[in-house]
Amino acid sequence: MAEFSNKQVILRDYLSGPPKESDIYVRTDTTRLKVPQGSKALLVNNLYLSCEPLLLFLMKKGAQQLPGYAFSTPGSPIIGYGVSKVLESGHPDFKEGDLVWGITQWEEYSLIRSTDILFKIHHSDVPLSYYTGLLGMPGMTAYVGFYEICSPKREEYVFISSALGGVGQLVGQLAKLMGCYVVGSAGSKEKVDMLKKKLGFDEAFNYKDEHDLDAALKKYFPRGIDIYFDHVGGKMLDAVLLNMRVGGRIALCGMISQYDLDRHEGIHNLTQLIYKQIRAEGFYVNNYFHLYHKFLDTLVPYVKEGKITYVEDITEGIENGPAAVLRYSSGLNVGKSLVAVAPS
Amino acid sequence: MAEFSNKQVILRDYLSGPPKESDIYVRTDTTRLKVPQGSKALLVNNLYLSCEPLLLFLMKKGAQQLPGYAFSTPGSPIIGYGVSKVLESGHPDFKEGDLVWGITQWEEYSLIRSTDILFKIHHSDVPLSYYTGLLGMPGMTAYVGFYEICSPKREEYVFISSALGGVGQLVGQLAKLMGCYVVGSAGSKEKVDMLKKKLGFDEAFNYKDEHDLDAALKKYFPRGIDIYFDHVGGKMLDAVLLNMRVGGRIALCGMISQYDLDRHEGIHNLTQLIYKQIRAEGFYVNNYFHLYHKFLDTLVPYVKEGKITYVEDITEGIENGPAAVLRYSSGLNVGKSLVAVAPS
Repeated sequence: MAEFSNKQVILRDYLSGPPKESDIYVRTDTTRLKVPQGSKALLVNNLYLSCEPLLLFLMKKGAQQLPGYAFSTPGSPIIGYGVSKVLESGHPDFKEGDLVWGITQWEEYSLIRSTDILFKIHHSDVPLSYYTGLLGMPGMTAYVGFYEICSPKREEYVFISSALGGVGQLVGQLAKLMGCYVVGSAGSKEKVDMLKKKLGFDEAFNYKDEHDLDAALKKYFPRGIDIYFDHVGGKMLDAVLLNMRVGGRIALCGMISQYDLDRHEGIHNLTQLIYKQIRAEGFYVNNYFHLYHKFLDTLVPYVKEGKITYVEDITEGIENGPAAVLRYSSGLNVGKSLVAVAPS
Repeated sequence: MAEFSNKQVILRDYLSGPPKESDIYVRTDTTRLKVPQGSKALLVNNLYLSCEPLLLFLMKKGAQQLPGYAFSTPGSPIIGYGVSKVLESGHPDFKEGDLVWGITQWEEYSLIRSTDILFKIHHSDVPLSYYTGLLGMPGMTAYVGFYEICSPKREEYVFISSALGGVGQLVGQLAKLMGCYVVGSAGSKEKVDMLKKKLGFDEAFNYKDEHDLDAALKKYFPRGIDIYFDHVGGKMLDAVLLNMRVGGRIALCGMISQYDLDRHEGIHNLTQLIYKQIRAEGFYVNNYFHLYHKFLDTLVPYVKEGKITYVEDITEGIENGPAAVLRYSSGLNVGKSLVAVAPS
């Protein structure tokens, strides 16, 4: 078998805090990757790689172990979700030429040993990159979180933080399709404009411009919030608690404002959960992958009919992978952040 | 109509913080209470009056308004749950001689104008005082919180704070009847002994003896907690979050450690709700009173068969009402706190 030249994005040492330029680097490996005789592994060519909270999470040592995931380890390519093409398969469910999305490594070519989180792509008449976002794990997260956790009803008041992220975009559009009033928060004017003009949110605001989050929420929700889809935790969650309506639901999807703090900020308004009879629920998309085909049956027609759109922030070339990670981590991306392994 | 001598427990001024001796006092009123012509009010003789978090709550000004309740007002008898006998009725659903439980006032005789929260007592072959607790609002709270909010399963690990309170006692016994492992916390050795020896809890501990609540919980729950029935909030809730199991449920019933603080303590471990996919839910027993008869059908046989027991802390005589409130508020009561209006 011929040698491959394999560009890789390598973790130098476990992250402590947000990633710094020195934490990850690119190297070109020369390997003879092949599927070992008798194994069920796949050799794949990675096409798109996804930047998301999980990616950073898996680069940390001693972070809460998530069931089902391998950690990134120093000296090896970082681990995350991606879209790939199968070059060689030892697994009966996959064959050469299949397109797949799931857990892979940040490099041009990977040997995927565990296919626990790997899905075959059947609809390739939509942008393939969407399988890192709208039609992949983030999309499933939005779908599950909104329909299964938030128990939405028509005309309810819905608030989404980090609303232009890979998940938030879809939550907002699903809520609009249901006839809800939808407001999103994000971290720049450009993102806010995108939410209102391109994604059809009723309102959006830049949380960095608001000194008093409680007052901001009272302005956008004079009658209160029925559903909060939380990506950030911390001060925003605390302010939202003051503005929830009786019987409200909070989907706890992430708390990105907290992950890099030595000690998480205190949340002071939890008695509101009692006074207003609110349900707050954390969830884990992997427990819902049995709904993936139902999800696609809903989403793919929406995408083809233009009823749902999706904003992506694509970095071209795996050699720019570290820069994409830093850009994402700093919140400079506008839309779902991903890397196109080979420049188009 | 003859004049009544009517001993009353009067609120001097709205509470700010825990009640002090000077906040409530006894006076003897002379009135000619009667049901006004054409009204649907009831004239009742109060038999038992209940000390519980709601009682203190309704004595505060500017506390979160609870739907369906009147506030206690300075110069008037304090408002709370009690058991009463109907002396005169303008309401078609009640007649002279009926025993009732629900919202009344702390005095010997009351004119009850709103019967929104008033239930006729049909089973009088159990201690009548139980209708302030086991068979009244606290019992319903336990029943609803456990079966409707906690979604319990056999052999799960259940933790209850303030476990010898009016609600906690029943939660623990319902959990034991379901085959769960049950641990309670309380604030004295006497209470802890009662939980283990009289109520059949598997374990119990005095939270005041534990400098490290996380370590204490790890000792009693080496495999973690599936269900937490929270009455206290604050540091205990924060420690419990670290010890919850995947898929756990937290019924948020009260946060008595917080109500008298100017600013509630921060809860730092909410990311656990995400990592462990936990549901935390506040609830309000009044939304479930349609289940009251089903509740009685379950509970009354248990009580008669001795499968469920109940510890009461009874203060005799309404003239000792203020002392009972202070005793309750300081946690000195052992079991459900109530006042027997007339000494037996």
